[in-house]
Amino acid sequence: MAELRFRDARIEMAHGAGGKASRRLIEGLFLPILANPGLAPLDDAAVIEIGGQKLALTTDSFVVSPLSFSGGSIGTLAVHGTANDLAVSGAKPLALLATFILEAGLDAHVLEREVRALSEAARAAGVAVVAGDTKVVEHGKADGLYLTTAGIGWVDTRLDLSPTRVRPGDQIVLSGPIGDHGITVLLARGEVDLEADLSSDTRSVWPLVERLIDSVAVGLRWMRDPTRGGVASALSELARDANLGITFDEGAVPVRDVVRGACELLGLDPLHIANEGQFIAVVAPEHLEETLTVLHGTPGGEDARRIGSVTEHHPRTVVATTPYGGSRVVDMLVGDPLPRIC
Amino acid sequence: MAELRFRDARIEMAHGAGGKASRRLIEGLFLPILANPGLAPLDDAAVIEIGGQKLALTTDSFVVSPLSFSGGSIGTLAVHGTANDLAVSGAKPLALLATFILEAGLDAHVLEREVRALSEAARAAGVAVVAGDTKVVEHGKADGLYLTTAGIGWVDTRLDLSPTRVRPGDQIVLSGPIGDHGITVLLARGEVDLEADLSSDTRSVWPLVERLIDSVAVGLRWMRDPTRGGVASALSELARDANLGITFDEGAVPVRDVVRGACELLGLDPLHIANEGQFIAVVAPEHLEETLTVLHGTPGGEDARRIGSVTEHHPRTVVATTPYGGSRVVDMLVGDPLPRIC
Repeated sequence: MAELRFRDARIEMAHGAGGKASRRLIEGLFLPILANPGLAPLDDAAVIEIGGQKLALTTDSFVVSPLSFSGGSIGTLAVHGTANDLAVSGAKPLALLATFILEAGLDAHVLEREVRALSEAARAAGVAVVAGDTKVVEHGKADGLYLTTAGIGWVDTRLDLSPTRVRPGDQIVLSGPIGDHGITVLLARGEVDLEADLSSDTRSVWPLVERLIDSVAVGLRWMRDPTRGGVASALSELARDANLGITFDEGAVPVRDVVRGACELLGLDPLHIANEGQFIAVVAPEHLEETLTVLHGTPGGEDARRIGSVTEHHPRTVVATTPYGGSRVVDMLVGDPLPRIC
Repeated sequence: MAELRFRDARIEMAHGAGGKASRRLIEGLFLPILANPGLAPLDDAAVIEIGGQKLALTTDSFVVSPLSFSGGSIGTLAVHGTANDLAVSGAKPLALLATFILEAGLDAHVLEREVRALSEAARAAGVAVVAGDTKVVEHGKADGLYLTTAGIGWVDTRLDLSPTRVRPGDQIVLSGPIGDHGITVLLARGEVDLEADLSSDTRSVWPLVERLIDSVAVGLRWMRDPTRGGVASALSELARDANLGITFDEGAVPVRDVVRGACELLGLDPLHIANEGQFIAVVAPEHLEETLTVLHGTPGGEDARRIGSVTEHHPRTVVATTPYGGSRVVDMLVGDPLPRIC
C-alpha cells in the first residue's frame, strides 16, 4: 500500500471545496488506501469494460445550503451533477440511484418538493431513477436533507477521452458564462446585502455534449464540468494530469456583470466559482470551428467560446492573459470561500 | 401521477427504521412521484436489461451510531449492506461507488480508519471501489461521517427471483442466528447496562448465495437480507408482495442467548432486530434438502435452518407458532426502538 501523505489532524470545510485541500485529502488518503486498477482518479467517472463496451459509473453527495435557490434546488442539482459527470465522460445518462439522509423534524412538504424536483429533473434529462434508500437521523445531526446520487451510462464508442490524449495546440472551449451557480447560492443565503437578478445554471449538459460527439467524435480529447473549484481548478487539474501548459484569455471567459460585481465585492475570483451547467472541452485544432458551430446551433450552447489553448511551454501551469495585456498564473482554489454550494 | 397518500406533517426517526412508517413514506411519497417502469419496489435492487443480460443496481446510505462497534464499523457495513442487496438479487457484486459526508472537526484518523475498513471489506468481498466523492459540512450538521455506497452486479442468468414466483408449499430457510447486529450496536452505545460477548454479524453473504445458486438455481424463488425491520418485516413484505400466507416455527429461528436476554430486558422482539450478514431464501420444496446441505457445507452457513413455509391460508399474513404450542401474528416493525443501527 502506498504511503499516506495526508497530515492534517482534522477535517475542515476546505477539504470538501474541490480545490487544493480536497486534492490533498483525496490523493493523500483516499487513493492510497483504496488503490485498485479500476479506481477513477479524482472526480472523473469510473469506466469499466463489459463485453467490449465501456460502462461509466459516477456518484456525488449533495449538501447544498439553502436547499433551494433561484433556478434550482438540491433535487435538481443531484440529477444534473451526476448526469453531467457521466456526460463529460462521454456517456449518456442511463439510470440514477438516489439516497436521502433526512433530519428528524423535516417538514414533509420540503421532502415532497425535493423528490418532485429530482423526478422532474430526471425526466427532463431522459434518465430514470431506478432505486434508492432513506435514512433518518436525529434533529441536529443533519441540515434538513442530504441527497446522494449514483449514475451509470454507456460511453460512446467513438470517443477516447483522456488527459493523456491532449496535445500542444489543442483548443479549449467553454460552453457558456461562469459563476452563476455559486453566486446564486451565496445570494440565496441572504448573508450578502446584494440584490441581483441571477439564477443557477443547473442543467444537464448531455444535449450539448451529444451533438458535439456526433460531429467531432475522436477529435474531442477531454471534457470536464467545472463544478466545485471552478474553471481554474478544472484547468489546473488538466495541466497537471496532461503534464502540459494551458494558456487562456481571461477576457474571453464569459462572466455576467452581476457575477463579476458580486465577486469584486466579496474578493472572489469568478474562475474559482462553481458551475452546474457548463463544461470545458479540449478539441483538436482542426475541429475548433466545427465545435463552435455545433454548440452555437444547439439550444443552450449559444454562448460557447474558445477561451485558450494547450502549450508545451510552462508544463503543469495555467497562465491567463489579462484584458490589460499582462499575464498571471491561475491556480486551484485554496480554502473554501463558498462552502456547501452543491 | 398517482395520488400521494403520505399524510405525516414531519419526518420522524421511525420513517427510517425499515418498518411500517418507512413503508408508508416510500409507498405514499417516493414511489408515486418517482414512478417509472424501471423503479425497484422498496428495498430491492433495481434490475435493468443490457444486451440480453440483467444488471442489478442498488444503493444505501449508512448513518450508524457509534461509527464502530464489536465486529465492524460504518466502513464495513457500507460494503456489506450494498453487496448483500446485490447478492439477494442473485448478482455477484462487481463494483462499488462510495461517497462520504464529513462533519468539520472530524479526527482525520477516524476517517483513515473507516476508509481502510471500507477498502478491506471490499477486498474481502471481491469487489472494487471504483469511484467516490467527499463533501464536508459544518461542525454540528452531521455526526462524524455518513457514508453512501452504490453497487452494480450481473444477475446470474440461471435465476428468476420474484415474490410472484413464490408458491404455497415453498420452504423458508434462514442462513443463521438473528439479532446480533442490532443488539451489538445498541450495546456499543453504552446506554444499556449490560455486558455481553457479542459481535455484529456484518459480512458479505455472496459466498453462501453463490453456492446456493450453483446448486439450486431456478429452484430459488426469492431472497432477502433482513436488515432494518428484521426477519419479521422481511417476511411481512414477502407475504404482502406474494399475496400468500407465511407460517413459521418461532422455536426454529436461531437466536443467541445473549441476544434473547437483551431483547427481553428491553422489551424488544428479536424478529424485529436488524441483521447485516444473514439472508432468507424461499426455495421450492423439492430443493429444501439440497439447500440445507449446501449451506451447511459452506463456511458461515453451518447454522442455516428451515424456519417455515408458504401457505395459501391467511394471505398477506405471517403467523408464528410458538414453542409453547400457540400461535401469533407477526407484523412489521412499528416505531423505531433502535435508531441508526445501519
